[in-house]
Amino acid sequence: MVKFEAPTLDDIRSAAVRIAPHARVTPVLCSPELDARAGAALFFKCEHLQAGGAFKFRGACNAVWSLDDGEARRGVVTHSSGNHGAALALAARTRKIPAHIVVPEGAVAAKLANIERAGGILHRCAPNQAAREEACAKVQRETGATLVHPYADSRVMAGQGTIVLELLQQIPDLDAMIVPIGGGGLSSGCAIALHALNPDARLFGAEPAGADDAFQSLQRGERITDVVPHTICDGLRATIGEPNFALLDAHHVEVISVDDDATLAAMRLAWAELKQTIEPSSAVVLAALLARRERFAGQRVGLVLSGGNVDLDAIPFIPR
Amino acid sequence: MVKFEAPTLDDIRSAAVRIAPHARVTPVLCSPELDARAGAALFFKCEHLQAGGAFKFRGACNAVWSLDDGEARRGVVTHSSGNHGAALALAARTRKIPAHIVVPEGAVAAKLANIERAGGILHRCAPNQAAREEACAKVQRETGATLVHPYADSRVMAGQGTIVLELLQQIPDLDAMIVPIGGGGLSSGCAIALHALNPDARLFGAEPAGADDAFQSLQRGERITDVVPHTICDGLRATIGEPNFALLDAHHVEVISVDDDATLAAMRLAWAELKQTIEPSSAVVLAALLARRERFAGQRVGLVLSGGNVDLDAIPFIPR
Repeated sequence: MVKFEAPTLDDIRSAAVRIAPHARVTPVLCSPELDARAGAALFFKCEHLQAGGAFKFRGACNAVWSLDDGEARRGVVTHSSGNHGAALALAARTRKIPAHIVVPEGAVAAKLANIERAGGILHRCAPNQAAREEACAKVQRETGATLVHPYADSRVMAGQGTIVLELLQQIPDLDAMIVPIGGGGLSSGCAIALHALNPDARLFGAEPAGADDAFQSLQRGERITDVVPHTICDGLRATIGEPNFALLDAHHVEVISVDDDATLAAMRLAWAELKQTIEPSSAVVLAALLARRERFAGQRVGLVLSGGNVDLDAIPFIPR
Repeated sequence: MVKFEAPTLDDIRSAAVRIAPHARVTPVLCSPELDARAGAALFFKCEHLQAGGAFKFRGACNAVWSLDDGEARRGVVTHSSGNHGAALALAARTRKIPAHIVVPEGAVAAKLANIERAGGILHRCAPNQAAREEACAKVQRETGATLVHPYADSRVMAGQGTIVLELLQQIPDLDAMIVPIGGGGLSSGCAIALHALNPDARLFGAEPAGADDAFQSLQRGERITDVVPHTICDGLRATIGEPNFALLDAHHVEVISVDDDATLAAMRLAWAELKQTIEPSSAVVLAALLARRERFAGQRVGLVLSGGNVDLDAIPFIPR
């Protein structure tokens, strides 16, 4: 394995140029009701309105358009519980190349449908990290496709970091930002961009208590890989990546861990007040903010609503 | 009763200036998935993201700020199944004057909560037109408040018409627009503005089949007032107003009637694809478009998503 090279602010700026023809500039929404409840000024960056319904398209698109023509022809491959897979398939389609997506059994139906709709080729595997990686390696051997890892990938991090460039242009003076933490691609890219552009702003990660390996890892100062995820946040079940852990540690990213009940309450609140159909893995940022209200009191806080691919047949806050 | 004077384009432009300090410029959202399904280019004007969660704030705000100081001090009164009531209460608060809201029994809980949260004073009445009007008249006699009718009011129509000014600035070249029809305030204001600015564009009204008094009235050439509404679209149960009917007739507005099943399917589609938590009374516009796909094929169509105050405890497309 080659030494990992983290993206710089310049890489993130190049990514923004690379993805501009394909990605959407997502809106920022505000809600006086939620501001009153939080005691802070909240700016919701609507990445659930990104192409494919999640921020993942930024990183995938940057990766796909970073390939040279020879690499591109052989296609791309990844493993993903859903949003990254759909994003890579969509991104591959913008370059008319094949995308192989390894999906764990038990992935959300709405997300699998998204992948297929985007033209991705599905490969199923058992729902654990080892099985995912083995299935990817097999596709690579057979097709010569380039692996685009969902988060431990510098091109992907750079793509996700473009959210910060955009958000700071829309809302220049933020005191803090909160992003969801799964494998750490979004938080890594955002940490690099945010601290380069605004060293005084703090980046927070919001993580489900039932998959809090990033929280534990940063507490102990070493990467924990044996957490068995149990959370409704299906997009945040991945284990924090090795380069991601190192970056979050170096950037002093503080992780706030929240239980699923708080996340569901926040999701309902977002649906009712923001009128945005976000998924649980997005709602975790609002849950984290409300759980640490005193921490953010009076501040201007950017919150990344990361995705909106929720299964409407299984809305978890509707009692049956 | 004084002769009704319909607003002109100038009145609508003045309304835009009057409400600008208080109302939001709402975003326009697009969805390649919905465009593909419709075979047309759809532009969703997000009035569910307006202050109070519905377009109604525009008309209410224009009415409140049209009053002279003496009138304003005595407050305003209206009857409303919800969104207009909340809007008037919010608008009154921007001028620090009292708002009396007559609400029919059976109104959606989320909407009543909105009214109270905005500082409106609730007066309950039986769910029929006569009871609403009598309760309003009583409040007027007792307080001297000015009646701000939900739709048969020139100031209200002018406020709603500002949607068209905004939308045509955001998306200049529309072939058609579809708005929901209840009492006809939104459609009247939009018809005046749209035809003044773009005489070639067609305005369509979308109306629930279970409350299709506007459809029947325009078919027969006379206003029908004896339809007993039975529809899940709680914002569209009102009887078409007298001046509203005359305006829709004069402007050759075509009404498309859709049943509740089609509206619920469209609502689900909007939640899943647009990620917008709109209410049934909004979804009716998408249902109308999909029901008349051939009518809009290849066109650029603006659709007004009128409100997002849905009761999340009673999401009707979730089977229990």
